[in-house]
Amino acid sequence: MSATRKRILIVGGVAGGASCAARARRLCETCEIVVFERGPHVSFANCGLPYFVGDVIQSEASLLVATPVLFQDRFNIQVQTETEVIRIDRGGKFIEVRDLKSGDARIEPYDALVLATGAQPIRPPLPGIDLPGIYVLRTIPDSRKVKAAVANASRAVLVGGGFIGLEMAENLVHRGLEVTLLELADQVLPPLDPEMAAYAARRLRTNGVNLRLGEGVEAFAKRPDGLVTVRTSRGKTIDTDLVILGIGVKPESSLARVAGLELGALGGIRVDEFMRTSDPAIWAVGDVVEVKNRVTQEWQLVPLAGPANRQGRIAATAIIHGSQEDESAGSPPMTFDGILGTAICAVFGLTVAATGASEKLLRRAGINDYQRVYLHPGHHASYFPGAKPTHIKLVFSTSEGRILGAQAAGEADVARRIDVIATAMMKGATVYDLEDLELCYAPQFGAAKDPVNVAGMVAANHLRGDLPLADWAELERVEALLVDVRTEAEYHTGHIPNAQNIPLESLRGRLGELPKNREIWLVCGVGQRAYYAIRTLMQNGFRVKVLSGGMHTYQTWSDATDHLERPT
Amino acid sequence: MSATRKRILIVGGVAGGASCAARARRLCETCEIVVFERGPHVSFANCGLPYFVGDVIQSEASLLVATPVLFQDRFNIQVQTETEVIRIDRGGKFIEVRDLKSGDARIEPYDALVLATGAQPIRPPLPGIDLPGIYVLRTIPDSRKVKAAVANASRAVLVGGGFIGLEMAENLVHRGLEVTLLELADQVLPPLDPEMAAYAARRLRTNGVNLRLGEGVEAFAKRPDGLVTVRTSRGKTIDTDLVILGIGVKPESSLARVAGLELGALGGIRVDEFMRTSDPAIWAVGDVVEVKNRVTQEWQLVPLAGPANRQGRIAATAIIHGSQEDESAGSPPMTFDGILGTAICAVFGLTVAATGASEKLLRRAGINDYQRVYLHPGHHASYFPGAKPTHIKLVFSTSEGRILGAQAAGEADVARRIDVIATAMMKGATVYDLEDLELCYAPQFGAAKDPVNVAGMVAANHLRGDLPLADWAELERVEALLVDVRTEAEYHTGHIPNAQNIPLESLRGRLGELPKNREIWLVCGVGQRAYYAIRTLMQNGFRVKVLSGGMHTYQTWSDATDHLERPT
Repeated sequence: MSATRKRILIVGGVAGGASCAARARRLCETCEIVVFERGPHVSFANCGLPYFVGDVIQSEASLLVATPVLFQDRFNIQVQTETEVIRIDRGGKFIEVRDLKSGDARIEPYDALVLATGAQPIRPPLPGIDLPGIYVLRTIPDSRKVKAAVANASRAVLVGGGFIGLEMAENLVHRGLEVTLLELADQVLPPLDPEMAAYAARRLRTNGVNLRLGEGVEAFAKRPDGLVTVRTSRGKTIDTDLVILGIGVKPESSLARVAGLELGALGGIRVDEFMRTSDPAIWAVGDVVEVKNRVTQEWQLVPLAGPANRQGRIAATAIIHGSQEDESAGSPPMTFDGILGTAICAVFGLTVAATGASEKLLRRAGINDYQRVYLHPGHHASYFPGAKPTHIKLVFSTSEGRILGAQAAGEADVARRIDVIATAMMKGATVYDLEDLELCYAPQFGAAKDPVNVAGMVAANHLRGDLPLADWAELERVEALLVDVRTEAEYHTGHIPNAQNIPLESLRGRLGELPKNREIWLVCGVGQRAYYAIRTLMQNGFRVKVLSGGMHTYQTWSDATDHLERPT
Repeated sequence: MSATRKRILIVGGVAGGASCAARARRLCETCEIVVFERGPHVSFANCGLPYFVGDVIQSEASLLVATPVLFQDRFNIQVQTETEVIRIDRGGKFIEVRDLKSGDARIEPYDALVLATGAQPIRPPLPGIDLPGIYVLRTIPDSRKVKAAVANASRAVLVGGGFIGLEMAENLVHRGLEVTLLELADQVLPPLDPEMAAYAARRLRTNGVNLRLGEGVEAFAKRPDGLVTVRTSRGKTIDTDLVILGIGVKPESSLARVAGLELGALGGIRVDEFMRTSDPAIWAVGDVVEVKNRVTQEWQLVPLAGPANRQGRIAATAIIHGSQEDESAGSPPMTFDGILGTAICAVFGLTVAATGASEKLLRRAGINDYQRVYLHPGHHASYFPGAKPTHIKLVFSTSEGRILGAQAAGEADVARRIDVIATAMMKGATVYDLEDLELCYAPQFGAAKDPVNVAGMVAANHLRGDLPLADWAELERVEALLVDVRTEAEYHTGHIPNAQNIPLESLRGRLGELPKNREIWLVCGVGQRAYYAIRTLMQNGFRVKVLSGGMHTYQTWSDATDHLERPT
């Protein structure tokens, strides 16, 4: 069959499926393109649902990025909503679909099939899980139900401290609800390391969210008065008007599994760099596929809209053009080369974002040859009013300085800094490259040394041997002498237990007070003065290390390790 | 002489000089480091001066990033302010300095000398240039004078539409002055191309600035009532309370020139990648040196704080460690590899930023193998309230798709997008790389296809042959049929003269109305629908091109080319 007459069927019409359909049409005017969508909507703004519930996005219509009518009129693409694909016959190259309104089934032949079936919210098999008042938030109909429930509620329990949980917490507090957030892990925001997630946890708490870490759900029950009782893993009970589950999603890969397509160990469909499955006539894109992490090279499930859209484009291109860009000599083939996992979340005015691998992810992948630095620069020059601190953690390989990941929290320009680092990582950059980046600077937009430059400098100083780093995790059991080089006044506002105060400005005159036979660990406010101090001490023959990020990092490390003892 | 006992003299103590001094101390505790500064301040925030005049930065003290006392106490660096270096004796390796308070001269020997003498505002030799009431803005004393003059003024004339001119315009309007801005060129913001600078020009005008393009100054005169009369190149006169010159700076390289150091054709000091001058014992950093443009490979003067700071670090490292990072096997040598010229400016709520080469710069360098695209995406997802358009121009090489430059204007996240592109450029990225970037997306922070992704896609679509582009500059004399594919309603709100309206949604049914023997140029709102249309038309055998950026770009092209006829 000629490439220009292909019949392309796409199962699922949200991010990846819709992108794939539209791009296929742009590349092939004569192909027949049909999208089957089980739900009532295609191409809707899934990521906007918490804000629709919170009335920040007021009109449901604005969540619809495109409609079946638009697909027909603009792209000559048929969209069949409320139509479920129930079987793939790979040998016969057809699928069986069922019209969910009439119940009728029929056969649809394909030349190319694209599975964009997405993912489904996880509903753990707990007692009472199917009671009314327990919701998930994945589709527009879901969000309608939650919105209606919220209108009559005064209390909500959120289960799961991921992106959706945090966004819902903010939106429900804004709607006036009393919110309890249960998270079984010791931290919110699983893609981050605990001491960086602690910024978000603190922000939730200061905004009245009853955040309970290390506490999951064991069962639900319905009370006679209509309330739901949540029993937690610590044996406590919470009565609430509604529960929203936000404990993640699992790939909707059953259609593929039944058809015998290769799946990965995590249950997602296995695809090659052209998004082709183990069947050469079938492609898969979006939340249903496993993707390779660019840093760890391990397979992951990363249900994010950006990668889904790109995968849709790539699959369409491969379907129409084959696996080479044969029409244009100069351009590289369009392939999907893995993910960084760049993600961002706002919670009560704080932005938290990350790209690449966390320490947790590295350790899980058996990668130990890395180092980390912390810094807390202002988001713009300090001499211009309104600078807000940006808390940054940069993780990089010890051997070559390659950037492995970054996490940041702050009130301004957090996306900007993480985007810059993500861009650098896509090109295989090192921390030395970050030192050299030439970024926007005017007083209200950064600094002559941008926060990302500073991150690169601190990391490169370490790798050049100029800045040996102490490990925060060893602080409590270390034998080293702790020296705090802040001013006396700063020191007296609070300091690490047993730290001795020698202000930077008097250090050169007080070298005699310091031992040469004992390791010295330096701390200051954010790490800068300790760096100045270590340069003096190292050149005077002392054995010395710096606690990266200073008292700012101390605070968040304490938050991250103390939370289990905190009153909740 | 041992490396650990070097006597390092630094001439000039602002951005580059101060950075160099501090880094030299970090690398060498035993070196003697002395900074000579002609003015009364070191390490002050030059870029903040317009905002100090505008009372946005209220305290003069906050402009002082560091003081001589801090340099002494923290870094053991001697700073001699109000001390001018008047001569370099390269053979004898000493300089002659004069204390400007006492008038006494003395000799200071050096092992390494760093020239960080900066640049001086250009004061063209016009009649009346030295009259009172005519100011420049380069130092804190300058800004004090301007601030005092502004307090009693109701009208100001700004000469020069560069960064300082625009920032001063905003600040003086906020102080309640009536502001006239004269710019001899046909556009403001020389680093930008005219149609992108037009966004800033429009913003100035809508905020009451009397912007007069193509009009410079010929002479100044003092009136009996104390006002200054400005005579312009168009023979007009303007009476004003004060004049601020912002027509650029020239490198302060006379000391180097007299000493016989090699200078470049633009008058800056010539240095190698370690910032070393033609004399192996003399380095130079900051506004006084010429730097190589990373895109054009031509020498330029780029007086920006970011590069100056990096150069200071690099020079210090080379002085202490030699030209190799000999202490640490793994890390690359620290070198200055040229500039992109990343720059940003805010004017009345609009941000304008650029990185890399403009078209003007490319043409001047004889580079013609490039293409450009325009786009106007929202700064975040359109379904979340408050999205603001970002106007982007991306310039890239036709042969390989290498990014050559980008310019952007908008009200939100402009720095972010330019920073991402600047980062990509530092790593030699192509437009295909921009397509693949994995950037932060949540509804209030971007889009599943980030504006930078979209820029890459549009450019890559062109290079892949899927999106032939028309040249806006040829619009007025073109023989092609203009087809506007917006809706009828949009078309009737205003369209390009002679454009015929065929809405995208009806295009497939109206192909018969279009000629096959005549080129067709497509236009829509921002370029997206024209792209959809061109895909249909190309595959149906039409010869067709798209006007990149649609009516949004048409508007700014018109602004840029019409301004000379505008009433000023």
